[in-house]
Amino acid sequence: MSGKPVVGITMGDASGVGPEVIAKCLSDRDLYEACSPLVIGDADVMGEAISIFGIDLKVNAIKDPDEALFKFGTVDVLDLDNLDIVDFVKGKISTAAGKASVEYIEKAVQLALSGKIDAIATAPISKEAVNRAGYSYPGHTEMLASFTKCEDCAMMLVSGPLRVVHVSTHVPLLEACRRVTMPNVLRTILITNESMKRLGFRSPKIAVAGINPHAGEGGLFGKEEIQEISPAVMEARNRGIDVSGPYPADTIFLRASRGEFDVVVAMFHDQGHIAVKMLGLEEGINITIGLPVVRTSVDHGTAYDIAWKGVADPRSMKKAVKAAAEMASRKSNALT
Amino acid sequence: MSGKPVVGITMGDASGVGPEVIAKCLSDRDLYEACSPLVIGDADVMGEAISIFGIDLKVNAIKDPDEALFKFGTVDVLDLDNLDIVDFVKGKISTAAGKASVEYIEKAVQLALSGKIDAIATAPISKEAVNRAGYSYPGHTEMLASFTKCEDCAMMLVSGPLRVVHVSTHVPLLEACRRVTMPNVLRTILITNESMKRLGFRSPKIAVAGINPHAGEGGLFGKEEIQEISPAVMEARNRGIDVSGPYPADTIFLRASRGEFDVVVAMFHDQGHIAVKMLGLEEGINITIGLPVVRTSVDHGTAYDIAWKGVADPRSMKKAVKAAAEMASRKSNALT
Repeated sequence: MSGKPVVGITMGDASGVGPEVIAKCLSDRDLYEACSPLVIGDADVMGEAISIFGIDLKVNAIKDPDEALFKFGTVDVLDLDNLDIVDFVKGKISTAAGKASVEYIEKAVQLALSGKIDAIATAPISKEAVNRAGYSYPGHTEMLASFTKCEDCAMMLVSGPLRVVHVSTHVPLLEACRRVTMPNVLRTILITNESMKRLGFRSPKIAVAGINPHAGEGGLFGKEEIQEISPAVMEARNRGIDVSGPYPADTIFLRASRGEFDVVVAMFHDQGHIAVKMLGLEEGINITIGLPVVRTSVDHGTAYDIAWKGVADPRSMKKAVKAAAEMASRKSNALT
Repeated sequence: MSGKPVVGITMGDASGVGPEVIAKCLSDRDLYEACSPLVIGDADVMGEAISIFGIDLKVNAIKDPDEALFKFGTVDVLDLDNLDIVDFVKGKISTAAGKASVEYIEKAVQLALSGKIDAIATAPISKEAVNRAGYSYPGHTEMLASFTKCEDCAMMLVSGPLRVVHVSTHVPLLEACRRVTMPNVLRTILITNESMKRLGFRSPKIAVAGINPHAGEGGLFGKEEIQEISPAVMEARNRGIDVSGPYPADTIFLRASRGEFDVVVAMFHDQGHIAVKMLGLEEGINITIGLPVVRTSVDHGTAYDIAWKGVADPRSMKKAVKAAAEMASRKSNALT
C-alpha cells in the first residue's frame, strides 16, 4: 500500500439512504486525510444524490481504480453502470436496486482480494430486495463470506466503548440456542482474540456472556453455561487468551462499556444488538472479522422511510470508512 | 386505608445488603411523607445495621402492626425474632438467613391479604440460600405467586422511563422459546394492560418485542412472530388494547425509553434485563403484577461482596418503597 489506504465504499441499495450518507460523508475534508475513498456503485445515482442534496462535489466516473483522483471535492465512482434512475423508486424496495447492490459488493471483494483497494466499507443493503433479485443471503456478512470463500468469519459490533462478537447472528433464536456448543464458542473466542489483536489490542480482555438468565444460576436455569460455555472459556485460557465468563448477560455489556473488558462474546444476535443499540449512539459500526479482506459497515439499515429526503445521518458511514482505513493501515504496517 | 399507606418492607437476606439499604432508606424523612413504613424482619439484625452504620434511628420492636408508631426517627420492626446475629456470617451465604428471608415474605403476604398492611416492598433474597433452606422457588416472584395462590402474575421492570414485562423469566432460554405461544403472549399483554391502568395509565401504549433477530425478518429467521406473536397482538387489539408489534428487539427498548411507548412486552428474561441494565441507572425497581397484593422490589441482588460495609446504595430500595406507596394509594382511591 502506497500512501493512504484506498477504501472502497459500496453504494448499497440505491432506494435507501446509501447514496445520501456516502455523499454527505465525502463532503467532509477530514476523511481525505485518513484515506483515499472510492465509491463502488453507479455514477448516475451518486450524481443524483449529490445534485438533489445540493452538495458541492463533482462525480468522477471511472472504470478502474487507477483512474481515481482521490482529491477532496471530487467523488471517484467506480461506475458499474448497472442501474438506471428509472429502474427504482426512491424509498421503495426494488429488485433492480437489490441486484445492483450485490454487484457492488462482489466487485469490491474482487478489488480487495487483488489488492486494488485496501479495505471495504459498505452502505446498507436490503435483504428483501436482495432476495427478490434471486440471491438467498441472509445478510452482508454471509455474502462476504461466500464471495471470499471464508468459512470462519463473524461480525463485531462497535459502538463507542462497546465491542461485541456473536456466536451466531441471522438465525432463529431456537437455532441460535443449538449453536451454543463448546467448539462454536471456542472458535468465536479465538477469532475475537485474533481480530482484536489486528485492531491494535496486544492482549485483549475478553468477557463471554451466558445464554440463560443469570448465566444459568449454577445450572438452575439451563446447562449450556456448565456444559458448553465454561469448557470453551477454559480451553481458550489454556491457550493463553485473557478470557473469562460466562457472565450474566444482563450486566456484562454495561460492565464492558464502562471499560472492564475490551470485547464481549455474545451468544446470539439480539443479546449484543440490544446492548449496543441501548447506548443510543448514532455512530455504531460493524466489522466483519475473520475475512481475508478488511470490511466495515454502517450499523443501520436502508431506512427506506427517510431515504432521499436529506435527513439521513452520515455519522455511522463516516466512522465505518475511518475504521476501515485504520484497520488497513495497521494490517499494512504489520506486513512491512 | 386510613391516612398514609402502610408499606411492609421485608428485610431480605440478612447476610446481604438488605438491612443496610433499609436502614439508610428509613433515615430519609421524605419517605415518611409518602407512607408509613414497617420493616418485617428481625429487630436485632436491624438494630445491628443501624448501630454499626451509625445511623440516628431507634428500633421499635413490635409483634403487631397496630403497635407501630410510624414516626420518623423510629424504625418499626415487626419482629419475627427468627434469626440470631451468630447464626450467619455477614456477606456469606447461610441457610439460617435464607430460611428467615422466606418467613418475612410469608408474613408480609399474610398481613397484606388481611389488610393489615397496604403494600409490600422487598429487599433482596438469595436464591441459593433459600434453596439451601429447603425451598425450591427460583425467585421472589414465584414465591409470592405461591403464597397468594396467584396463577397469573408477571414481573415488570421499571428503570427511569423504561417499563418491561416478560412472557417468561427464570427459565432456560430454550424453554423460554417454547413458552412464546399465542396464549402466553396474549395473557402477558392483557396482564400488562391491566397493571399499567392500575399504575395510572388510562390507555397504556404497549409495544411487543419479537423473539428472533429482526423480529424474524418476515419469517426468514424464525416463525414465532408470524405464528404466535402477531396473532396475540391482533387478538389484544380486537379487545381494544393499544398494542402493536412484534418489533425488532434490538431497537424497541430504546424507542420505548425515548417515550414512544409506555411499556414493552419482552419475550424472555435477558431481552428486557439487558435493555434496562444498559440504561445504567441505579434506581431500577421490579413490580410484581397480577398479584392480589401490591408488591415492589429492588432490582439488585444481595450483593454479598459489598454487604455490611456501609457502601450499599439505597436508591433502588427507596424507589421501591415509594412506588409501593403510590400504587397502594391509587388502588385505595379506586376502591373508594
